[in-house]
Amino acid sequence: MTTPYTVGRYLLDRLAELGIDRLFGVPGDYNLNFLSQVMEDPVIEWVGNRNELNAAYAADGYARLKGIGALITTFGVGELSAINGVAGSYAERVPVVAITGTPATSVMAEGLLVHHSLGDGEFQHFLHAYQEVTAAQTVLQPDTAMDEIDRVLRICWYEKRPVYIALPSDVSGKPATPPQAPLLHSSGPLAPRDNAGPLVLEQILHRLASAKRPFVLADFEVDRYHAQNLVRTFIERTGLPIATLSMGKGIIDETHPQFVGVYHGALSSNELQEQITGSDCLLLIGVQLIDTITGSFTDNIDLSTVIDIHPHHTLIEGMLYEGIDMLWLLDALTRQAPQHPRAHKPNPTTVPPILPADMEGPITQEHFWSRFQQFLAPHDVLIADQGTAYFGATSLVLPPGTRFIGQPLWGSIGFTLPALLGTQLADPKRRNILLIGDGSFQLTLQELSTIIRWRLHPVIILINNDGYTVERAIHGPEEAYNDIPMWSYHDIPRVFGDSTALTRQVATVRDLDEALAAVDLARDRLVFLEVMMNRMDAPDILRRLGRAMAAQNRY
Amino acid sequence: MTTPYTVGRYLLDRLAELGIDRLFGVPGDYNLNFLSQVMEDPVIEWVGNRNELNAAYAADGYARLKGIGALITTFGVGELSAINGVAGSYAERVPVVAITGTPATSVMAEGLLVHHSLGDGEFQHFLHAYQEVTAAQTVLQPDTAMDEIDRVLRICWYEKRPVYIALPSDVSGKPATPPQAPLLHSSGPLAPRDNAGPLVLEQILHRLASAKRPFVLADFEVDRYHAQNLVRTFIERTGLPIATLSMGKGIIDETHPQFVGVYHGALSSNELQEQITGSDCLLLIGVQLIDTITGSFTDNIDLSTVIDIHPHHTLIEGMLYEGIDMLWLLDALTRQAPQHPRAHKPNPTTVPPILPADMEGPITQEHFWSRFQQFLAPHDVLIADQGTAYFGATSLVLPPGTRFIGQPLWGSIGFTLPALLGTQLADPKRRNILLIGDGSFQLTLQELSTIIRWRLHPVIILINNDGYTVERAIHGPEEAYNDIPMWSYHDIPRVFGDSTALTRQVATVRDLDEALAAVDLARDRLVFLEVMMNRMDAPDILRRLGRAMAAQNRY
Repeated sequence: MTTPYTVGRYLLDRLAELGIDRLFGVPGDYNLNFLSQVMEDPVIEWVGNRNELNAAYAADGYARLKGIGALITTFGVGELSAINGVAGSYAERVPVVAITGTPATSVMAEGLLVHHSLGDGEFQHFLHAYQEVTAAQTVLQPDTAMDEIDRVLRICWYEKRPVYIALPSDVSGKPATPPQAPLLHSSGPLAPRDNAGPLVLEQILHRLASAKRPFVLADFEVDRYHAQNLVRTFIERTGLPIATLSMGKGIIDETHPQFVGVYHGALSSNELQEQITGSDCLLLIGVQLIDTITGSFTDNIDLSTVIDIHPHHTLIEGMLYEGIDMLWLLDALTRQAPQHPRAHKPNPTTVPPILPADMEGPITQEHFWSRFQQFLAPHDVLIADQGTAYFGATSLVLPPGTRFIGQPLWGSIGFTLPALLGTQLADPKRRNILLIGDGSFQLTLQELSTIIRWRLHPVIILINNDGYTVERAIHGPEEAYNDIPMWSYHDIPRVFGDSTALTRQVATVRDLDEALAAVDLARDRLVFLEVMMNRMDAPDILRRLGRAMAAQNRY
Repeated sequence: MTTPYTVGRYLLDRLAELGIDRLFGVPGDYNLNFLSQVMEDPVIEWVGNRNELNAAYAADGYARLKGIGALITTFGVGELSAINGVAGSYAERVPVVAITGTPATSVMAEGLLVHHSLGDGEFQHFLHAYQEVTAAQTVLQPDTAMDEIDRVLRICWYEKRPVYIALPSDVSGKPATPPQAPLLHSSGPLAPRDNAGPLVLEQILHRLASAKRPFVLADFEVDRYHAQNLVRTFIERTGLPIATLSMGKGIIDETHPQFVGVYHGALSSNELQEQITGSDCLLLIGVQLIDTITGSFTDNIDLSTVIDIHPHHTLIEGMLYEGIDMLWLLDALTRQAPQHPRAHKPNPTTVPPILPADMEGPITQEHFWSRFQQFLAPHDVLIADQGTAYFGATSLVLPPGTRFIGQPLWGSIGFTLPALLGTQLADPKRRNILLIGDGSFQLTLQELSTIIRWRLHPVIILINNDGYTVERAIHGPEEAYNDIPMWSYHDIPRVFGDSTALTRQVATVRDLDEALAAVDLARDRLVFLEVMMNRMDAPDILRRLGRAMAAQNRY
């Protein structure tokens, strides 16, 4: 007798078809029936997280590398704990499937007063909350479950936004049939359905041909739609110079001869500002001009004068063309756009030489980043928490193949430690390096335990600057609300059961150099470095951004 | 020159008027202007939490003792992280004021693409999410802020439900005038506005007079509306026997001669079941018959045959009477109901003698609870996390004046450690004892750091039974998803900076006895006991409930 095929197995098969091999989450009695199915799945492995918010962060990190991720929580308590993480995936366009185990169908239909409900007999409250932060939602019923699973997963994939699946405890075991056709109709570029596509293409080609100073500014949507190669081929064929914003840092190799830098609006070098604001044909590819990456809206880009290419639409001088697939457009432009006669200037970004320092002196931000730059290696995955870590990292020159992950739009501190669990599980062979502040680490520290449990070996560098330095830069530098308790951070791996980790607390430049040298020899161990820095020290760009943010809050 | 009076000060003054002297939360750049006002407030002290969910839990715990609590988060990331905690306050009727600092009014009006938003120019998403889990909401504007603050705070107080206040970063500093009249119109019982009140009173008196076996079953709403004394006086005047459910355990002194026990439906003693189901006039006071406290709906109470008294309405044999204030009704019943001729039986609950045990043997659930019963003292605040801790604690006989806190309806594991911060700050002089499982502790451990930072000295007893035993009781006793990583729990206070805490890991009955004796001598230190127990051992009531819950999930 074979095990009967069920709704739960159908869901798992579709997730596996999209490339998912890990499911994040926390057990709860409404999802236990489904979890038993997960344990029997031949492809998907269960990753129990320490709490649900961390599970959502981990699924997000995993999805950024794998292309899609998933988590399962339990009704009410679990799904609401996770919702901030899922909202972050929505804001930053990371496709995550948020599954919630709910009470049984009859329990909900009869409005019973069960635990994890608000005790009012209503079972739609949390679905409604999720409608605000997901692109599609479904509550599975036995007879329509397969169609509904397919519907929301397609939206997740094409929109690169999270979706919500409510799975009642009695439905996961209901009979189903295995998928009969592939979930995705096409994995490549979608040709436009009407003549808007050729029209847009023609207009862009015309503008490019007549422009004297065309320029490409590309950002995070290029990453989310896996268009890095298309963008690189496009600029190589045309010879156009390219910059990114910090959110998409790394989508083009920063040592590429046509790369010009990371644009931060008025916080950028004068030369970079001049190139962008002086362009007579500015191509934005996958860009959203949000405050934290534009020096608080000092980018000086007037969207009504540029070509603004997004995954499913393009704006030309403010005119909207819907249904234009970015991948198709980039491919067509690459084939048809001429080599631009104006040669680009050589890439001005070079890895700076290491700064001379007093070896016995304290570790300043300046010295830290100078030394970290030397440590960073090709193909590393570099994850930086919002704060001094993110803004310091944006000034690094990424070696070829480096993947950079931050969260400048949603900006949820604490995101990166659980996200590291996700990125490292997505590709255990790449070296993952996390840069995180003490303030951020305190929000989600328990996920270090899951990293240890899975015997992963990332490099975690905790910047201990005694509080919320990013907030001090904006308001209240000396206020007690920006202080946090001091912990013995470097003892934490051992408390979580890892007695072989390389843990160091480093306070001088010499300590730092020695620790980084030791890390290079410790590839088969978890590394946890606690780097002591002054509470008022911050990367220059964060200092200047802080002042702009304070003004924005009085606006 | 005096400091100008502002909207922020008005809000703080109203919170202080309700009895709030601590504000929980996490700073974020959209709330920093308001936090600077908090730091200057003469009454309200800032309590920075380690993350926002923990802040919501702490505000809930504080409110359970103080009558009301408050927290402040930042837009998007902060408020969504907290929403599970606020939903728990809604479900369990705990009045909490959830304040969120939002982007400036003009930033929102212009739909700017700022951080902590979804990047779509819309600023209502999180307000909509909060509409699902709060009783009232407001987004403060300079000209209506004072009226709106008063409106939502009154709803919070009268409904005993959380409310949501969005405070834009530019509004907290806008001019206001100090409150001119008290916020609450009355603090005592509200006389009914129509003749439904006298009618209900007359019917209940009539039924009581003719009943042969009247019985009072009271629960948590009695606590929330501070009606404990009214209930006690009522039963003392009438001589009626009383039981509670476990959610309201402790609202009547368990050594009171008329107290009969804690009712768990079919999981109760036969004698208690017979008294309740055999009553010909069952008065329910502040009761909600939810699954976890009724042995999965085995209470055998037909609501259409009883008198069902709630804070603002009463049902008599299924007929609804709105606008009946529970406090008024209890007061009137106490004045007018006759002494019932049938003498109650003597209170059958007695503190059992300590169980004989093999002193060198492992600590079973049975032995633990027997010994903990002896340890518990009058006026303790006892907090038990959902799981073995809660279900074990429901079988204790509470000494006089003991306050019992659990969360059986919302049931969010990890709630109690941050809630302990709140309860202990609400009354630092009472001994607070937390019983928490290892599975729960891992979700929110960082709030122990805040407890230490405030130099509080609760007794924390961590039941280390190697995983989610409460889930094992329902489904998958040997499944890996119910396992969790093993930590060196007893090292954690030191990592969080407390080198003077009394910490012990106890594995035998003798260890336990010695540790509990040591605790009695350590009143000026934090106590952290890690009690080792078998992963499959559970209080009997949880074992039986688990089987019922498994059936409920297949319903």
